Amino acid sequence: MAVPPTTSRTAAELATQPACWRRAADAVPATEGLPRPGERVAVTGCGTSWFMAQAYAALREAAGEGETDAFAASEFPTARRYDRVVAITRSGTTTEVLDLLAALRGTAPLLALTADPATPVRDAADALAVLDWADEESVVQTRFATTALALLRAALPGGREAVLRAADEAATAVAEPLPAALLSASQWSFLGRGWAYGVAQEAALKMREAAGAWTEAYPSMEYRHGPVAIAGAGRVTWAFGPVPGGLEEAVTAAGGTFVHAPSDPLAELVRAQRVAVAVAEARGLDPDRPRGLTRSVVLGV
Amino acid sequence: MAVPPTTSRTAAELATQPACWRRAADAVPATEGLPRPGERVAVTGCGTSWFMAQAYAALREAAGEGETDAFAASEFPTARRYDRVVAITRSGTTTEVLDLLAALRGTAPLLALTADPATPVRDAADALAVLDWADEESVVQTRFATTALALLRAALPGGREAVLRAADEAATAVAEPLPAALLSASQWSFLGRGWAYGVAQEAALKMREAAGAWTEAYPSMEYRHGPVAIAGAGRVTWAFGPVPGGLEEAVTAAGGTFVHAPSDPLAELVRAQRVAVAVAEARGLDPDRPRGLTRSVVLGV
Repeated sequence: MAVPPTTSRTAAELATQPACWRRAADAVPATEGLPRPGERVAVTGCGTSWFMAQAYAALREAAGEGETDAFAASEFPTARRYDRVVAITRSGTTTEVLDLLAALRGTAPLLALTADPATPVRDAADALAVLDWADEESVVQTRFATTALALLRAALPGGREAVLRAADEAATAVAEPLPAALLSASQWSFLGRGWAYGVAQEAALKMREAAGAWTEAYPSMEYRHGPVAIAGAGRVTWAFGPVPGGLEEAVTAAGGTFVHAPSDPLAELVRAQRVAVAVAEARGLDPDRPRGLTRSVVLGV
Repeated sequence: MAVPPTTSRTAAELATQPACWRRAADAVPATEGLPRPGERVAVTGCGTSWFMAQAYAALREAAGEGETDAFAASEFPTARRYDRVVAITRSGTTTEVLDLLAALRGTAPLLALTADPATPVRDAADALAVLDWADEESVVQTRFATTALALLRAALPGGREAVLRAADEAATAVAEPLPAALLSASQWSFLGRGWAYGVAQEAALKMREAAGAWTEAYPSMEYRHGPVAIAGAGRVTWAFGPVPGGLEEAVTAAGGTFVHAPSDPLAELVRAQRVAVAVAEARGLDPDRPRGLTRSVVLGV
């Protein structure tokens, strides 16, 4: 199955991610308000930004930089005390994020990562990291969120090198043909351990938003505790990062297709984004116009 | 659509939950090793037990008893320090739980909730709460996990009364007819805020395991940040606990069926378990024999 030519804005924007990530790596020294070693940090956002928050939290804690929790903005336990809170919001207008920052103001330094500094988040946070070069028109967000993660990751020990490597691998992922089995499946389960779990959740969200597809995401080891019941013919189980022993065998025994590439989970996410766009187009959907979604969720009063 | 008569073990066991929960409430005074007010606690398990851990963690922290985190056993950040760790494991043999308890031994008091004290978890934990009256034969676990949650919940301030009320409501949920729209749907999304999110995740897992169904779960406020793209005709969005403003309207505008009952989320879970069994039977599946699953996940060396 050849990939049909695409003119979607989503496809055009997702292809710029390697360049966006490299620029994020260069932006670290000029960025104020980043978490410092040893601080207890909470990271928050909604939707895609929440999944990037999860990925960063796991990366930072695994790097020995300090306890790092991630919460959906609507589920943040505001009675806790953190040394710093980081919010990710492309639009700078998401209701739950603004409400949360207002509730937290004064309890900890607040850093917001945004694409648009001319929005209410400017006044809601103590420090602002503006990633305007990664802003996007697409409703199905891709490059802003991964660029925010790239910036935070590049500030961790060894992170700059990891981000540049991921950008190189993503440049390959943008260009190479997509395997037919990934495009013709009827269901996709994304798996990851540690920080790759947040990335897997984001991959599933893209399939869900762009293609209206049946898709799920789990921590890799959790998959065998129930969700593997869904594996079968015409269904894909796609593991990001290292694969636990026995997992591929369990999926194959059920007749499912097991996918794993050794590349960086962020580069694999780019492949998954491309699959989501291609599946949407094969189903006659416009990936730029997902059902029931808007570019920013602003709730009524 | 009438509910077909069922002879499955899963259906028989799930109907005993009100009685199991009442017994759990009575078991609190004799249970050693429960979290004390003010302690920093982590709760862990795999699959269903992980979701119950999430629910308890949110309940305990919201009750002002102390910071409480929940982790899948395979994703537990073992470098953190807690005042107490609670593990939930029906079989007492799950590999990841036993490995984790071995790694944590000596760092904090370890309490394990299990149905079978004659298993390795006996020696892996410092204290054991044996809920043998809630053990079950079914692979699709229902009553052990909810009974473990009922015991932990009953030990919280006001918890005993809440559990007894939930048991009364669950007795109704066991007996009353299931709405046809719930049985004939092609997709189910379960939503919840706070502790109800863990319960919603468990509801989705039952649909997935027993019926092989397309099902998802989200924090209620997160649903509009992407997953609502799946809402539509023949699809159910089922909210546990309080419903955020505008949610029902968003689902209905997409053509979806919105379900909400004011009863306790645990009682609503019983309704969802019954729907999972009924959908499995309507699809010609045996809910007692889910695809690719075993009663306990013991990994090879």
